[in-house]
Amino acid sequence: MDEKIKIAIVGFGNIGHGVKNSIEKNPDMTLAGVLTRRPEQVEKELPEIPVFDMEFSDWEKYIEADVAILCGGSKNDLPVQGPRIARFFNTVDSFDNHKHIGPYIDKKTEQQMKGYLADMDSVARPSLHTSAISLGWDPGTFSLEKLLANAFIPGAKAYAFYGLTEKGGLSMGHSDAIRQIKGVKDARQYTHAITETIERIRRGENPDLRPGEMHWRECYVVLEADNPLERQRVEHEIQTMPDYFEDYRTVVNFISKEELQKSHSSMHHDGVVIASGETSPGIRATIEYKNTWECNPEGTAGILVPTARAVHRLNKEGKYGALRIIDIPPAYFSPYSSEDLTKRFM
Amino acid sequence: MDEKIKIAIVGFGNIGHGVKNSIEKNPDMTLAGVLTRRPEQVEKELPEIPVFDMEFSDWEKYIEADVAILCGGSKNDLPVQGPRIARFFNTVDSFDNHKHIGPYIDKKTEQQMKGYLADMDSVARPSLHTSAISLGWDPGTFSLEKLLANAFIPGAKAYAFYGLTEKGGLSMGHSDAIRQIKGVKDARQYTHAITETIERIRRGENPDLRPGEMHWRECYVVLEADNPLERQRVEHEIQTMPDYFEDYRTVVNFISKEELQKSHSSMHHDGVVIASGETSPGIRATIEYKNTWECNPEGTAGILVPTARAVHRLNKEGKYGALRIIDIPPAYFSPYSSEDLTKRFM
Repeated sequence: MDEKIKIAIVGFGNIGHGVKNSIEKNPDMTLAGVLTRRPEQVEKELPEIPVFDMEFSDWEKYIEADVAILCGGSKNDLPVQGPRIARFFNTVDSFDNHKHIGPYIDKKTEQQMKGYLADMDSVARPSLHTSAISLGWDPGTFSLEKLLANAFIPGAKAYAFYGLTEKGGLSMGHSDAIRQIKGVKDARQYTHAITETIERIRRGENPDLRPGEMHWRECYVVLEADNPLERQRVEHEIQTMPDYFEDYRTVVNFISKEELQKSHSSMHHDGVVIASGETSPGIRATIEYKNTWECNPEGTAGILVPTARAVHRLNKEGKYGALRIIDIPPAYFSPYSSEDLTKRFM
Repeated sequence: MDEKIKIAIVGFGNIGHGVKNSIEKNPDMTLAGVLTRRPEQVEKELPEIPVFDMEFSDWEKYIEADVAILCGGSKNDLPVQGPRIARFFNTVDSFDNHKHIGPYIDKKTEQQMKGYLADMDSVARPSLHTSAISLGWDPGTFSLEKLLANAFIPGAKAYAFYGLTEKGGLSMGHSDAIRQIKGVKDARQYTHAITETIERIRRGENPDLRPGEMHWRECYVVLEADNPLERQRVEHEIQTMPDYFEDYRTVVNFISKEELQKSHSSMHHDGVVIASGETSPGIRATIEYKNTWECNPEGTAGILVPTARAVHRLNKEGKYGALRIIDIPPAYFSPYSSEDLTKRFM
């Protein structure tokens, strides 16, 4: 057997834990080290693994890894950590700020920015590393499926919907946004797909849709001081929050801390990509790709880990720089040999 | 605008017609010529396109094409045409004999065979051509989706089901097989998925399944001479036919020629890939990929045509030899520029 692929985990929250679990299910990989803001706690949890403080500036000298999987947040962690770590290691990350992957105008400074893909490429390429960015399911597998559906049914728009079950899907980002509001102790936000719109797309209407026509949002909020005036203020602040809520029908429920812990601890999420069009006039074709994760961060982790395998292989072949999922030949994700792939999947 | 990609169609049956329709929906492509066994008829249909008789041995000197899309059958046409044409052109085909893609033992001669992938590679590579084999949806997109689902949910088996609607999906291969029986004038075979089994997989049982546990088969048969004895004989021959029917519950209906033409002219087919497993103990994850084609051969054609785009690009980059869909970076299928892909799909 070949030597195992050595993985470093950078950031040990929900996704980092998921990556650790997934490495255990991929026998060609091994965990080489963990970087975390809570080293003392993680050392107890993983006594046999080298654990370093994220603040320790020279950690890359002490971890021997083929690929670093970056599990930090897209807003504050990855824009700094990504380019820094890509100098020393091949990387995989789940950068999920869709608008900042390619070139964009910074809203505050009004400066033209190159975007995360170019930033990572400018570091990884000269240091002979390979960096796969924006993995996970959206961006990630959903990006791939939208591209393919649009190519295979030319002219078909590809739509993505989230929260298909009755309870909806838990959005960590929107839950966090509510928790930033003054007076909010804790919160959960469930995204719900509007099923009537899905049916319109299945019928092949290919409509232009505003965000609020595709999803509505349901919030469960625990207040520091629960009273009618406070409820009114917080509900209004949520419903008018730009980007996150103002474009959607948003229902706000106030509950107790106990109720939140009892009924809202699941991290279930799901989503579907749908594309419908015509192969010739009047002849309909539809492609749907759906994933359901009982634990959303573990689903993301399950995609990050095989991407580390792909990155390791591509790097050995001299394919340097930053890559998106759509740049990676699918065979590279699989642990099986080329002949085995034909036998199993073709 | 760049020069258009010039496509030759080899074989002008249902799939060949679908390829012609699909080229018209892909503005970066143009039809450069058609090879057919019925040149006189096709010349009338396509007066502005060079049309050649398939038997004309030097046709490759008279057609200027970047890619030839081979639309012949997998049993008799492609094993001969594929290696012959790959000497002169880049190719795309829908070779769908799953067991003969990789190495196999020939049943009659008991010889070890290299398989279609290796046969095509041994011609395409030295002549500096690129040949994408076994495109379509199964093998094809379903192969890709099985591989990815198995990688992203490690240990999850990926199952494929066909014929999800009430009417089932029309199988051309099985219809042909029935038409080979003596006394049969015409026939259609609908494949039906067994929905209870799909539910078992969605629940995460990951069962080992015999073919007859996944599908049943429904046949509509027109007899040359319709009488009770003849019905009994033909029904028995169908139900005991190896490979095609003997492993399945098979229902045979006898109908008139008029009824067959009236009610069974649709070429609808659909299918789904389902993989279900655990991201960590007790935590479930499921991926489903479904496609629905009102006209099955047009669906296949819709996949072949963007693959010609991918093959043309890969060839220009010096990637020679035979490839499977799982070897092709997804971005290559799309008409959009790399920056556009980030904007649209990431």
